[in-house]
Amino acid sequence: LNEETATMANTLTRLYPWLTNPAIISAPMLGAATPALAANVTKAGDLGFIAGGTRLDTLEIALQETAKLTRTLNSHRKDTIPIGVGFQLFNSKPSTATAAFSKLAPAVAWLFAPAKAADLAEWARGIREATAGKTHIWVQIGTVAEARLAVELAEPEVLVVQGSDAGGHGLARSASVISLVPEVKDMLASIGRADLPILAAGGITDGRGVAAALALGAAGVVMGTRFLAASEAGIAAGWQNEITRLGDGGVSTTRSTLCDRLKETKGWPAWYDGRAAINKGHEDEKGGMTDDANVALYKDELKRGDSAWGSHGRMVTYAGTGVGLIHDVKPAAAIVKDVRSQARACLERVAETYGRGKAVSRL
Amino acid sequence: LNEETATMANTLTRLYPWLTNPAIISAPMLGAATPALAANVTKAGDLGFIAGGTRLDTLEIALQETAKLTRTLNSHRKDTIPIGVGFQLFNSKPSTATAAFSKLAPAVAWLFAPAKAADLAEWARGIREATAGKTHIWVQIGTVAEARLAVELAEPEVLVVQGSDAGGHGLARSASVISLVPEVKDMLASIGRADLPILAAGGITDGRGVAAALALGAAGVVMGTRFLAASEAGIAAGWQNEITRLGDGGVSTTRSTLCDRLKETKGWPAWYDGRAAINKGHEDEKGGMTDDANVALYKDELKRGDSAWGSHGRMVTYAGTGVGLIHDVKPAAAIVKDVRSQARACLERVAETYGRGKAVSRL
Repeated sequence: LNEETATMANTLTRLYPWLTNPAIISAPMLGAATPALAANVTKAGDLGFIAGGTRLDTLEIALQETAKLTRTLNSHRKDTIPIGVGFQLFNSKPSTATAAFSKLAPAVAWLFAPAKAADLAEWARGIREATAGKTHIWVQIGTVAEARLAVELAEPEVLVVQGSDAGGHGLARSASVISLVPEVKDMLASIGRADLPILAAGGITDGRGVAAALALGAAGVVMGTRFLAASEAGIAAGWQNEITRLGDGGVSTTRSTLCDRLKETKGWPAWYDGRAAINKGHEDEKGGMTDDANVALYKDELKRGDSAWGSHGRMVTYAGTGVGLIHDVKPAAAIVKDVRSQARACLERVAETYGRGKAVSRL
Repeated sequence: LNEETATMANTLTRLYPWLTNPAIISAPMLGAATPALAANVTKAGDLGFIAGGTRLDTLEIALQETAKLTRTLNSHRKDTIPIGVGFQLFNSKPSTATAAFSKLAPAVAWLFAPAKAADLAEWARGIREATAGKTHIWVQIGTVAEARLAVELAEPEVLVVQGSDAGGHGLARSASVISLVPEVKDMLASIGRADLPILAAGGITDGRGVAAALALGAAGVVMGTRFLAASEAGIAAGWQNEITRLGDGGVSTTRSTLCDRLKETKGWPAWYDGRAAINKGHEDEKGGMTDDANVALYKDELKRGDSAWGSHGRMVTYAGTGVGLIHDVKPAAAIVKDVRSQARACLERVAETYGRGKAVSRL
């Protein structure tokens, strides 16, 4: 087992030579994950993501920008840009990715939310063909069944295992990482793929969460909400203020499709919803308000800008349950550095107190 | 920080001298947590719980039985029975506990689900008076706000922090332990109570979950679902078969109040529901069936016994999301022994791979 843990860690650093263990990855949050955020996470020894979106021109500009921003990084594979690009498959076309990647190939394409599972195979094949395999495939899953299918259909280099605490979109029904990560690991072992690195996502915002994810069997983590409070995040000040203000994340946030309806976002497969902070819109819905009325009030408030965020307001504050552990906005590089060193210290402290032969047992 | 972790572990072994670190506690599951289960968990170096229920005569008999079963244990405080008793406050009377405990005092009373928070204070005071402080108070909470109130009102010796993955009853809305445990720890530190031991519950069924809980800041764990598959558990074979059969716990189980309605259990405060395996009753409810019709079908099936459990049936299978990690029925002592040794090995393995100075970084 020692070997297996070390193998998984080594696999990540073999695939992405600039990576420091444990890996702390920034999620491809649409809008929020700017080229600067992604590049600075990569340059701090991790791997940053941008969101692919649906437009080829926007994606090409973003790839050029990340290429420029990461030019000074020496340790990466020279045949790719050392960042990743995330796609929501249900509303994107593989041709957008392949057209852009045949000019500038990112290290990773992260596939999420196919309308039907078979789309994973088509996307993975298309991207690998377009970049001669230089761009790796990561797949985000939220159940053991999805994980099994993803491995079969897309043969990913890495699996991202998202639990129910995650902010933004995810499966409406899933376990948290506490049981999902080990159950996915056991399934992988049962099909002879104990070597496949997995990353845990959902509710992880500091070193304690990272240490826990490693104990559960992950080779690293993906954080979303924590990077919403990075200086480089491309979000409204009102939203960012909420991230540092909110506490008691299990009750200040909730899973719902309301935010999609307010923003008139169409097409999410029925089995997804999103976790966001509870606000006036949620309360009015509970009180029986129609979507039409709620949308009208939401659109009115859009004009108010940053002051319309908060529990009194109607703006959408996507956030995970870990939001109560975030108290400051700082550069992405400082976030990964602080989280990693906290994780290492935490692991050593706990192993020292509770490890074999060292336990404070039967004093 | 090293000192703080060690202090919390030492506090537990000072309070309960027979305890081995990390502590693996069996939950007070009504019916399922038999005196034999509780006694065998305690005798294996942990602390077992029975459910207090609502009847004085039943509670007194159970206390006598646990006293008899733990008589051979030498290392415990001689003034109490080395087990705990759990109460659901909303449907129990403090006088039941105090009348029983003034004759036979258990080491711990675990308080859960008050109809109003102030009841915690009344229960804690009553029990401490009845046993001259010999019986300690543990309070189960599911949010940071509840934790703060519990510390203020009941001055508990230990806090049990239950996350959303837990089987059976819990808050309808809460985070999982991944973010809830560290946020509760930070709150405790902010009020000068970093020393207060907390135990993590919800989705933890094996050593990896225990190791994760310790990394998050807990001094040990409480397991419910795992002990439903103990040889000593007082549950129907049909239920126990489901525990070892079910996989993909995040989708095979769901949170709902349906099971209370089927069993015609009254009085749970509105903010609680329960996690159980999805079955025909859940499907029919989704399809629009009335409670009356669903209850009638449930009662019919009760006669079928063990064969009425399963996704095709209507019997209630309370289970947490960790159910997919449980594959066998074994004695409670073997469960705690195996889980603890797996947890220790896991912590050492992970610290060795990822700890400070030992990281496989920048190979």
